[in-house]
Amino acid sequence: MTIELAWLNEPCHPINHAAADAARQRQDQLTKPYGSLGRLEEMAIALAGMQNTATPSPDPVQVLQFLSDHGAVAEGISAFPQVVTIQMLRNMATGGAPVSVMAQALGVRLEIVNLGTATDPGEIAGVRSVRLGAGTGNIAREAAMTERQLIDGLNIGRDGVERALATGAKLLICGEMGIGNTTSATALACALLGEEPAALVGPGTGLDTAGIARKTRTVSAALALHLTPDAAPLELMRRLAGFDIVATVGAFLTAAQRGLPILVDGFIMSSAAIATVRLQPAAREWMLFATASAEPGHRRMMAALAAQPYLDFGLRLGEATGALAVVPLLRLACALHQHTATFAEAGVSQN
Amino acid sequence: MTIELAWLNEPCHPINHAAADAARQRQDQLTKPYGSLGRLEEMAIALAGMQNTATPSPDPVQVLQFLSDHGAVAEGISAFPQVVTIQMLRNMATGGAPVSVMAQALGVRLEIVNLGTATDPGEIAGVRSVRLGAGTGNIAREAAMTERQLIDGLNIGRDGVERALATGAKLLICGEMGIGNTTSATALACALLGEEPAALVGPGTGLDTAGIARKTRTVSAALALHLTPDAAPLELMRRLAGFDIVATVGAFLTAAQRGLPILVDGFIMSSAAIATVRLQPAAREWMLFATASAEPGHRRMMAALAAQPYLDFGLRLGEATGALAVVPLLRLACALHQHTATFAEAGVSQN
Repeated sequence: MTIELAWLNEPCHPINHAAADAARQRQDQLTKPYGSLGRLEEMAIALAGMQNTATPSPDPVQVLQFLSDHGAVAEGISAFPQVVTIQMLRNMATGGAPVSVMAQALGVRLEIVNLGTATDPGEIAGVRSVRLGAGTGNIAREAAMTERQLIDGLNIGRDGVERALATGAKLLICGEMGIGNTTSATALACALLGEEPAALVGPGTGLDTAGIARKTRTVSAALALHLTPDAAPLELMRRLAGFDIVATVGAFLTAAQRGLPILVDGFIMSSAAIATVRLQPAAREWMLFATASAEPGHRRMMAALAAQPYLDFGLRLGEATGALAVVPLLRLACALHQHTATFAEAGVSQN
Repeated sequence: MTIELAWLNEPCHPINHAAADAARQRQDQLTKPYGSLGRLEEMAIALAGMQNTATPSPDPVQVLQFLSDHGAVAEGISAFPQVVTIQMLRNMATGGAPVSVMAQALGVRLEIVNLGTATDPGEIAGVRSVRLGAGTGNIAREAAMTERQLIDGLNIGRDGVERALATGAKLLICGEMGIGNTTSATALACALLGEEPAALVGPGTGLDTAGIARKTRTVSAALALHLTPDAAPLELMRRLAGFDIVATVGAFLTAAQRGLPILVDGFIMSSAAIATVRLQPAAREWMLFATASAEPGHRRMMAALAAQPYLDFGLRLGEATGALAVVPLLRLACALHQHTATFAEAGVSQN
């Protein structure tokens, strides 16, 4: 591995189990029946352990939104034309996209990153342009990217987390947008999990039956071409992933190394989570999982990560929206943890 | 029926289906794949139809928190002593209870109502005292309440909604607290749904196996005594419910009559929802269901109401906490509905 990626081997930050235990003990002293706030208790306990504090909080939340194009669109695997990636980039920057509306409503920081749209839209206010190329290669016929692009993509994700940490971020959300990216995510997840394409391929943004069949053939072709016994996870990412996914892996791994909790969005971010955990299993401990995607293959991805996502809202947009929907629940969980009176404080009898 | 309850027969307000359809059409024009925001779309569409507006919103939210004691505690059916009802009343009033913390964090109005704790705590700042008596009778041996208490309880709920409407409330949440109230709720739900006690009885605040057996025997005894073929729903409420449940039925039915959307909390509020719908089936259209309770019988209650609750967080506290957890999701749903750009506005290509 090149020296530029030596950081991939830095160990993950340890979870502070004593802080998590203290939080669990506090929950048992709060004026409510034992365990009766269910996952709202779990959330506060998990963040307490990650943040090593008696007063966990998701705020400030940093969203890194990675956009890039995917060469596999040439195979007819998306319901939308490729130009939509740039159109949505502008829509995010001007506040009209769902992620923008949610980030605004929640008071959450949103950084929009152009990693490589098929054409260069030039400078757009509110967009960080760090283009690695004009989208990835068509994975059904060639590698998604060069080694240089892989290295740079990982480092861009790392840099995003470093910037977030410098401004005090307490929770990381990565989002993505890029026409065709469920195909890249599916191919990568199949390769890493040993799943058949048919088990993970879904309609994405809205494919019909014929479209799903094309997508399955595309993923199958990509696996036939790229899934060789000698290929390590990093090399599989180079061959199959998108720039968005690669940058997310860099961000996730850095977050785990620096001790920044991660809230994982939907289908595509889950494939990045799988890749991250393949690079370093201990990174899994830094991940909270936001939503059960409506994309049918997501269930297997969650099972592979031993993850039980918080929301089951039939979401299949991605773009960080599922993770953002969970942010107010994390906030409530932390408010309850910090401000609910104990039995002793309130003079309430215990059972 | 007494003239004092003539209002029970006033028809429910009609849902504005044209407004819901317009909201659905707008959702399909927003810059995201069709239907990809799942239940966040559903929420906005439902509120648009109820509120007859293109800009639905849950705010201001009004929580009516009804506290009362339940005579069935004499049968040993709760893990906590009865004095906890008054202790929690004080804890809610001073901001230390989970509902208080959540209402504060969310900026939601909380009205705390003492409908009849076993002893009178006297005046407590922040508590409306409208005591109907020193708790209900022990339903295993006698009727829960008199006809006078039933009438007054229903009217107290109605008055709470009238006050909320006068101050512009857009969403109603009712909460409850009262040691023993899962037993009353279970008995009432069994009577109204024709379920066996064993199918609906659960651990409540934390009963062990022996406690659950006592609770099942208590509900069975109550049904044997009170479930007569001639008893109408209102009379079954008088015999089996608690003051908290009765006031909630009054509030829910008034909300449906006045066109105020209802967000139903967990197990106990679901029994009140069932009773309300038995009084007027059309009231069902005004109800959104917040959480799948960890209380095992709740699943059957949701099925009886054809309800699919939003959250499955293992919550079993009640006290409005499940409904409050859903408030920020309703807010996000409405923000997305109002502020996401359309394909035309953003110049984004459609599929």
